[in-house]
Amino acid sequence: MAKPIDFYFDFSSPYAYLASKRIEALAKKFDRDVNWHPILLGIIFKTTGNMPLTMQPLKGDYAIRDFIRTAREQGISYEQPSTFPIASQAPCRVFYWLNEHGDEAHRALATPFLHAAFNAYFDNDRNISDPSTTVEIAVETGVDQTAVETALDNPAVKDRLKEAVAAAIERGVFGAPLMFVDDEPFWGHDRLEQMERWLQSGGW
Amino acid sequence: MAKPIDFYFDFSSPYAYLASKRIEALAKKFDRDVNWHPILLGIIFKTTGNMPLTMQPLKGDYAIRDFIRTAREQGISYEQPSTFPIASQAPCRVFYWLNEHGDEAHRALATPFLHAAFNAYFDNDRNISDPSTTVEIAVETGVDQTAVETALDNPAVKDRLKEAVAAAIERGVFGAPLMFVDDEPFWGHDRLEQMERWLQSGGW
Repeated sequence: MAKPIDFYFDFSSPYAYLASKRIEALAKKFDRDVNWHPILLGIIFKTTGNMPLTMQPLKGDYAIRDFIRTAREQGISYEQPSTFPIASQAPCRVFYWLNEHGDEAHRALATPFLHAAFNAYFDNDRNISDPSTTVEIAVETGVDQTAVETALDNPAVKDRLKEAVAAAIERGVFGAPLMFVDDEPFWGHDRLEQMERWLQSGGW
Repeated sequence: MAKPIDFYFDFSSPYAYLASKRIEALAKKFDRDVNWHPILLGIIFKTTGNMPLTMQPLKGDYAIRDFIRTAREQGISYEQPSTFPIASQAPCRVFYWLNEHGDEAHRALATPFLHAAFNAYFDNDRNISDPSTTVEIAVETGVDQTAVETALDNPAVKDRLKEAVAAAIERGVFGAPLMFVDDEPFWGHDRLEQMERWLQSGGW
């Protein structure tokens, strides 16, 4: 099997949400897995000097129109969250805790949790920046409530997220979704088609 | 004939250069013309708080890699200019002067001049921010040298450009290329395919 596709994202990114609905099928076509890397764009923007899209004059209006238009074209259910953007430490931590858990049963819940958290935020207006909401979603996904509450307060889990963000910056991640096919970066939901052509042709 | 596609661009934008090579054929498929609107992103970025792509840490490295990669995929000749980005007042002024000229022979040279200026900058490393280089390109396109030199210093021509930039901001233009199909905005070379689907389907 070829190397997994690395998928860097923030749980608060609409384009990452849209791409999260399509990346697994795309990877599978080329016999690849997806490695999910939740990160914090807020920290990364301190390095790059960027601002969240919707806070940028003119571009912000276009962005909100485009989130909805592009979701509609793709047949993906989308509702602009009433609080946006948000800090996404809580779902990031739960994801890393599950995904790198010693217990296979926990690891198996990491990707379902990720999709559930995305859906909660972008399709049900649940504010996943609130740790108690993130806990609820984890419990709905099948995780034990006390275990996930403990994990959220675990300094090792907090450190794991910091480490993931630092590693992403080190690799050149500046936005979301940012995907790597081997070492070739593709930025944005709107580059999935180009990435597919790259996978198909082996590059050009 | 349906309404022309409005194509807002800065002569210094690589993605606008790439899209300029494709937009006329795309418009023609749907029996539309292209209305070219050269503008100054530097002025617009004062409103939006943006920076030129290549000046942004991390994103800049990706951008340069992507200009070259995307041009190669499209079979478009591209060489990263040695001075980048540039102020593009000179070619903008020449374009508006030609395009809105009382004389049909001058008007007919506006689009050829536009393509020649883009090619000079992105394929031959000629610095079109230098008025004398822009004059050379106009002369190569068939414009009279004294006439174009006079136009470049004409306050009415300068005002026309200012007016065009203000009108673009008023319409919500925040980047380049930004294209409107009727009143539907599409931003970026990488949205040409989505714009084509919009034209094909009449929207969704």
